[in-house]
Amino acid sequence: MAAKACNILITGANRGLGLEMVKQLVAKSCSGCQIFAGCRDPDSAKSQDLRELAKKHPSLIRIVKVDTSNMQSVADCAKKVGPLLGKGGLTLLVNNAGVMPHNNMKTITAKEMQDIFSTNLLGPMMMTKEFLPYLQIAAKSSGKPGMSCSKAAVVNVSTVGASMAKAHEMFELFNVVGYRISKAGLNMMTVCNALEFKEDGILFVALHPGWVRTDLGGHDAAISTTESIEGMLRVMESLTEKQNGAYLDYNGQVLPF
Amino acid sequence: MAAKACNILITGANRGLGLEMVKQLVAKSCSGCQIFAGCRDPDSAKSQDLRELAKKHPSLIRIVKVDTSNMQSVADCAKKVGPLLGKGGLTLLVNNAGVMPHNNMKTITAKEMQDIFSTNLLGPMMMTKEFLPYLQIAAKSSGKPGMSCSKAAVVNVSTVGASMAKAHEMFELFNVVGYRISKAGLNMMTVCNALEFKEDGILFVALHPGWVRTDLGGHDAAISTTESIEGMLRVMESLTEKQNGAYLDYNGQVLPF
Repeated sequence: MAAKACNILITGANRGLGLEMVKQLVAKSCSGCQIFAGCRDPDSAKSQDLRELAKKHPSLIRIVKVDTSNMQSVADCAKKVGPLLGKGGLTLLVNNAGVMPHNNMKTITAKEMQDIFSTNLLGPMMMTKEFLPYLQIAAKSSGKPGMSCSKAAVVNVSTVGASMAKAHEMFELFNVVGYRISKAGLNMMTVCNALEFKEDGILFVALHPGWVRTDLGGHDAAISTTESIEGMLRVMESLTEKQNGAYLDYNGQVLPF
Repeated sequence: MAAKACNILITGANRGLGLEMVKQLVAKSCSGCQIFAGCRDPDSAKSQDLRELAKKHPSLIRIVKVDTSNMQSVADCAKKVGPLLGKGGLTLLVNNAGVMPHNNMKTITAKEMQDIFSTNLLGPMMMTKEFLPYLQIAAKSSGKPGMSCSKAAVVNVSTVGASMAKAHEMFELFNVVGYRISKAGLNMMTVCNALEFKEDGILFVALHPGWVRTDLGGHDAAISTTESIEGMLRVMESLTEKQNGAYLDYNGQVLPF
């Protein structure tokens, strides 16, 4: 992503993995890059770290208000960000915002499942739809063959918990049925998008960030946000059209659906 | 399912695969069996064939009103059917009702995705939750070890289109992104339920009925509803705890997630 001026949009960028990704991308960015850091509530206490980071890099980071569970908010975000992208379009969309409430079949309600689905699946779907014209511009204007995250790409932050083939290995540890269902749907969306927009030269991947010490992952998790994002960015930089539609972890290992 | 008196509930039972399943189960049923044929609108013209079938077998078939996209309707269905199940509980729940509107990422709207999700995923989830106590009664009262569709089981009607591993093989033929996403989620729910209720002795499977000549499958599809249901019932009769959480086609072949 660092080789040329890129426009990057990350949702859920005010904390955890999203914030760490913004931080590490700042260090990698070259002149003319723009990082759009999306978050639900830019003025709240939860966004303070992001605000401070943005203050240090005013020409690089723009904080953008977007609640991915609210379709009007997603549309408003595209209306605001679109004109700022210029002739380069949107190089990279990272659908990172997500929720993971603890529940099982006995405790989950229809309302809770709908809310999880709205944030974890409908949000990425509508973000992708709204920014598709700008991703197409990025792909066309790049003048490069093939696919890459420095040409035009959508990274959907998934989870190994979305793997049905591996579900039995970690079921007891991972009591979040609504989250798993929504992320399995997100994986399918990634696969379908990869096929639908192949001719446009836009790359789509689903990435598992590892079990990370964040609000979602908890204190006992295996790796830090630094390690997770270092891995994810390394993987993202290595992606080509061969990985279009793939489901990978932060070390680049292919995960079984 | 035929060896002893069973209580079976099938959603979307007024046409297509659901109606054919009721027909074939009638032929297999023994004395004391009850088939609850769920449909959205029992009095409409679309339910005429089911009404005629039920008239011929009044002691066996009961038509039950249930709109699986409406959570109140699902709760009402459980309130009505529950007391009719008696000491045997619910032997088998077939979550068959589903929708498959044609769409791709360019055409799908948030509202359309939510509606597909409500019928194809939230419906089976809420049906399973509401009838879980009756499935547990069936499992306990059976006195049999292991798992089977004649003890206590939930069959979720899935599709090969929910296979991410096989998506590239048939993408052009199968332009239904919302349906695929919802059914991938349904497969994950099946896997999670199989793990969560293993100790209860309730079997969960996701079954692909084949590409069938129904309103959903169209006229050019490969097999008739008769062939599909003959296959599905043969597979269902053969299931044991070894297939708990499996994703199979109507010939019993394991499908890759």
